[in-house]
Amino acid sequence: MAVYTHLGAEELAELIAHYDVGELVSAKGIAEGISNSNWLIETTGPNGKGARYILTMYERRIELADLPYFLGLLDHLSAKDCPVPRTIHDRAGDAFRMEHGKAVALIEFLPGVSPTQPTPEQASAIGEVLARLHLASGDFGLVRANTMGFADNLRVLQACGETGLASINPALPAMLEPARKAAELDLGSLPQANIHADLFPDNVLMLGSKVTGLIDFYFACTGAMALDLATTHAAWSFDDRGRYRADVGSAIIAGYESVRPLETNERALLPGIAKGTALRFVASRAEDWLDTPDDALVTRKDPMQFVSRWHYYDDYGAQLFA
Amino acid sequence: MAVYTHLGAEELAELIAHYDVGELVSAKGIAEGISNSNWLIETTGPNGKGARYILTMYERRIELADLPYFLGLLDHLSAKDCPVPRTIHDRAGDAFRMEHGKAVALIEFLPGVSPTQPTPEQASAIGEVLARLHLASGDFGLVRANTMGFADNLRVLQACGETGLASINPALPAMLEPARKAAELDLGSLPQANIHADLFPDNVLMLGSKVTGLIDFYFACTGAMALDLATTHAAWSFDDRGRYRADVGSAIIAGYESVRPLETNERALLPGIAKGTALRFVASRAEDWLDTPDDALVTRKDPMQFVSRWHYYDDYGAQLFA
Repeated sequence: MAVYTHLGAEELAELIAHYDVGELVSAKGIAEGISNSNWLIETTGPNGKGARYILTMYERRIELADLPYFLGLLDHLSAKDCPVPRTIHDRAGDAFRMEHGKAVALIEFLPGVSPTQPTPEQASAIGEVLARLHLASGDFGLVRANTMGFADNLRVLQACGETGLASINPALPAMLEPARKAAELDLGSLPQANIHADLFPDNVLMLGSKVTGLIDFYFACTGAMALDLATTHAAWSFDDRGRYRADVGSAIIAGYESVRPLETNERALLPGIAKGTALRFVASRAEDWLDTPDDALVTRKDPMQFVSRWHYYDDYGAQLFA
Repeated sequence: MAVYTHLGAEELAELIAHYDVGELVSAKGIAEGISNSNWLIETTGPNGKGARYILTMYERRIELADLPYFLGLLDHLSAKDCPVPRTIHDRAGDAFRMEHGKAVALIEFLPGVSPTQPTPEQASAIGEVLARLHLASGDFGLVRANTMGFADNLRVLQACGETGLASINPALPAMLEPARKAAELDLGSLPQANIHADLFPDNVLMLGSKVTGLIDFYFACTGAMALDLATTHAAWSFDDRGRYRADVGSAIIAGYESVRPLETNERALLPGIAKGTALRFVASRAEDWLDTPDDALVTRKDPMQFVSRWHYYDDYGAQLFA
């Protein structure tokens, strides 16, 4: 949520000159991206008609080795008419360049805003687009393992320790046992594709009920499509106060199935997957909580929000995904 | 340098509906502004042709009572063809609205990027535009006192205390005596106008050698025009390593004087004013330094940069502004 690296106008102009996008007209550092710096760039455009791009500088976490996967997936999906930004390749044909020892990529700007309280129509559109993404991503040539899988979540929670977890909230250590169960789920037997794996509202751009862009593919990986659906469901179907929004939740699933009906084994595992995906955010938030000093300027996200979603899926998952 | 308040798409759309700017198409929180939140907003525009704006939410520091001055000055200057953004008034005719208990304003988006190492041509253009601003702002109807005047700087340095200052750098306490001298300067006898008072590179947008926008008027006040020129000179005429760039410094003054020649009493006081303005940034940076925890994520600006500029003006000011 910051711009970590300062790039002056002269440096930006020099960078832009490596692409066939015309001359720099404007550049604003934008407050998006957890571990990278982003600028909304305006140029005179390849045809002089003006164009806009997102310039991303990768600061941390993302391994250079993963960039061909992330950026290649965008190109693969946009070529198949999925609403994702394409990457702009430089004059040498490369999808990213090195500047100041960091990788940078120029990415298509897409219009749209991120709904925070989606309507059922919006939820249905999101489900549909997610299914289209899955159908389009299956034949992408590269593979990336999920680094936030259920076994990883268990490891993160164990590293926080019972004492650490209890220091955040006394109810947190009780999540260790369900995390152990989730880690035993065999998702490898389910239909696989290349999945977004983090489709929260911030990562979806919409105009009205139309999805104009899925963005921020930096958790994308090769994995079970049902996992992506469950994560999307967990991310969108609860309101500010943690109450389940049945109309939104069922619209996501119905929208998804209107494009790609779930298989029997996916449906059977979905309640467990939904619980596992809730635990993923319990684990990552608990880890961040313990890593962030109390007096830091950053707002810490409460892991208990997703404990409550885990409980919801534990109680009602079987009927939700029936 | 952040977005302090989260405004969801629904809230932004509702806010935008109070203005005749069409419908919301995009909104990106931008990493500008020290004490306010800013979004780069795109709408379908009043004529359906698309338009862009900066939406600012005032978070701190800026007193509500000052907003009519700041925003009114933008309208006054843009009506006189100075390159400043105009404020977009809402359907009720107001320049700002209250949302979540905070004032928000919609401001014209201007193209351009901020040079960090200006050429002499750019420096000359900045001097010219500053002089045009001064000629245009004299008859603005409102008045605002300078809250960062030389007496205020002295008070800030005294509040840091000799021990506090020495804890930053042993050479800092020696700046108290010059700050006392600067506080005795009588700027009231010099030609007055409404001045920007903080014309650092970040606050100037340019395309090539043309100034497309002066922005961030939140230190603007009624005061001596020579103070604005000296601040601009101190902000632009030194390179990364603190070396004086004679070509840039003299181009700023020559550009300024090509539009508004300095009067004899301004020229006579400029060396002292330049030293005083260097001390302003020594004082504000020293205060911020002591207020910011060592382990904060924020980069602290070194007050010693401006101690070195003070020394430069002390040694060479008389000949620079002769």
